Amino acid sequence: MTEKSPTKNIQAQVEVQLDERSYPIYIGHDILTQAHQILESVIRGKKILLVTNNEVYDLHGHTLQLSMEKTAQEVQVVTIPDGEQHKNLEILSALYDAAVEGNLERSSVVVALGGGIVGDMAGLLAATYMRGIGFVQVPTTLLAQVDSSVGGKVAVNHLRGKNLIGAFYQPQAVLIDTKTLETLPEREINAGFAEVIKTAMLGDSNLFSYLEDNIDNILKLKPIELSHVIAACCRVKAAVVSADEEEHGIRAILNLGHTYGHAIETLTNYQTYRHGEAVAIGMIAACRLAEKVNNLTPEIRERLTKLLEKANLPTQFPLFPREKWQMVFALDKKVKAGNVIFILPERIGSAQIVNTIPLESALEVVEELQKDS
Amino acid sequence: MTEKSPTKNIQAQVEVQLDERSYPIYIGHDILTQAHQILESVIRGKKILLVTNNEVYDLHGHTLQLSMEKTAQEVQVVTIPDGEQHKNLEILSALYDAAVEGNLERSSVVVALGGGIVGDMAGLLAATYMRGIGFVQVPTTLLAQVDSSVGGKVAVNHLRGKNLIGAFYQPQAVLIDTKTLETLPEREINAGFAEVIKTAMLGDSNLFSYLEDNIDNILKLKPIELSHVIAACCRVKAAVVSADEEEHGIRAILNLGHTYGHAIETLTNYQTYRHGEAVAIGMIAACRLAEKVNNLTPEIRERLTKLLEKANLPTQFPLFPREKWQMVFALDKKVKAGNVIFILPERIGSAQIVNTIPLESALEVVEELQKDS
Repeated sequence: MTEKSPTKNIQAQVEVQLDERSYPIYIGHDILTQAHQILESVIRGKKILLVTNNEVYDLHGHTLQLSMEKTAQEVQVVTIPDGEQHKNLEILSALYDAAVEGNLERSSVVVALGGGIVGDMAGLLAATYMRGIGFVQVPTTLLAQVDSSVGGKVAVNHLRGKNLIGAFYQPQAVLIDTKTLETLPEREINAGFAEVIKTAMLGDSNLFSYLEDNIDNILKLKPIELSHVIAACCRVKAAVVSADEEEHGIRAILNLGHTYGHAIETLTNYQTYRHGEAVAIGMIAACRLAEKVNNLTPEIRERLTKLLEKANLPTQFPLFPREKWQMVFALDKKVKAGNVIFILPERIGSAQIVNTIPLESALEVVEELQKDS
Repeated sequence: MTEKSPTKNIQAQVEVQLDERSYPIYIGHDILTQAHQILESVIRGKKILLVTNNEVYDLHGHTLQLSMEKTAQEVQVVTIPDGEQHKNLEILSALYDAAVEGNLERSSVVVALGGGIVGDMAGLLAATYMRGIGFVQVPTTLLAQVDSSVGGKVAVNHLRGKNLIGAFYQPQAVLIDTKTLETLPEREINAGFAEVIKTAMLGDSNLFSYLEDNIDNILKLKPIELSHVIAACCRVKAAVVSADEEEHGIRAILNLGHTYGHAIETLTNYQTYRHGEAVAIGMIAACRLAEKVNNLTPEIRERLTKLLEKANLPTQFPLFPREKWQMVFALDKKVKAGNVIFILPERIGSAQIVNTIPLESALEVVEELQKDS
């Protein structure tokens, strides 16, 4: 390839198939500088509103802005405060004001540069401004690159519920630059790998083996290995989203580890664990539950635990009284008539949705794992 | 039909064809009492949030609530203040609170009982609560029955733009009870007829003739004639929406009379004319413009003017200096590079979208019509 090829540094491209809402995910190293070429068909001649936060703007925003300005009509920037507590209607309202001030039109494009919070809020802005305008995701955290930027879930929180206000709104393109991960704190990278491992567990046994074999290089963020892993995750996610865009069924499979994970996050007031860390522990619990109700072989849990440990993720179950677990499970939207909906591993690379798990079985697993801790 | 048939008083049913988002419109007289039967497949066993305003609740809400309670799990009621100035994010936020307080679930259903404001706000609530829950429209104004309740446009206003924040979100059913119109002020009914006449003008010449022949009975709200007219309007609207759900093209045809109409509303600060009244005058201007640029026969405008007058709608152009008109046209989103997008009548029952009208021609029409006034 020549120096000028728009795909110079693109190492993988994954298509999300959704009929007229299909879109490409471009994955590569140091590709923000080529955004004007990669995204040309989406942004040429358009007004762009680049939504990001101050920290990410300082690290990567200027690069992306300069690149997009080569083909867009204009690029305006709006920053939002970082932190889940700001992912609310008030900040969304400020984003509407910014869109109005910037005279955005129906043909304009919102570009989200950042992690899941930026992507979720910018996406809801794009979904609802003038009943829907253009939208591009440029995720800069591992979690966003392998999960939240793909699939069209956008939302803000309500005081009484995470992501309670939102929509399904697909981007026109996702641009993943693995170089942006180099500026992330190690713990955030590791938490992201929990979702990578989750994706392998539920949908790609080859990826799981690849992770086992290459975890050191991957944790060192070696570009080739990293792109391979992210592309594999995007492929799994794309297939699930294509099959069930609005989560009427199979899409729930992506919640592997999340029922226990949410309970852990709730009991620790979201202070002790990052989301991915809670999901790591949650996946182990889901394996144990599958052993109990479906005779899953314990070898699966052992391989999973080993991989999580290599990725510096927690695997020990936190200690809380039984009543507390009971309470948080009861509050979970996934509990219906005394049964809890769980995603249970079937083998490496495959999982199933089971909505007939007695609350009692779920609580027994908690007690057993707490004894092991 | 027997006394117990759910369709006892249903005089017409129109289907909006949108693949898996298709839905029926039920039209009849005194059918709120049968809501539990007509809407059974949508509301049975579900939690319902009935969104309305105090005045409409007093007139019709209790009837609808009692009926739905016969099959729904429960029916909660939330009222919003009436008036376009309250159709904003703040009141929408209060609706989210009500939905949370009511423990609405993904399977729950928002039922909008009222005019366009209630429908738009309840619809945006339904579109975005938990990324989309059930939604039923029960419009109680003529304008909402023939226009805003069908087609899935939902929105709130931003200080700087009407309906700036919104979505396309189709209801699962629309229930139109023509009896609710009997409690409307005469002027509101007449304003609604402007949209009826608009619909006939752009899509149904038979309806136009029927209106000419039966306007007296229709204005007296005779149930049979009224249902016939409303069903005909819904059929035109349904066909347009089926062809272009998200207004990428032909759906704009529904804006016949709206470019001049919006200008008139803006110049009179939304105080002098009801929306339908401004559209009435706007349609006459659109005819005159079509005479100028497309040699439309003046007979069309004469028939239109006569019918509008019979429906007690204004037909005289308000007087403002040329510069004012120029200014409001320039602010209109439909103006691009000195050209204005207009919907121009071609004959009774047919119109076209023309985006090459010079601003100058549009202003000449204003001056000519002002001289006639």
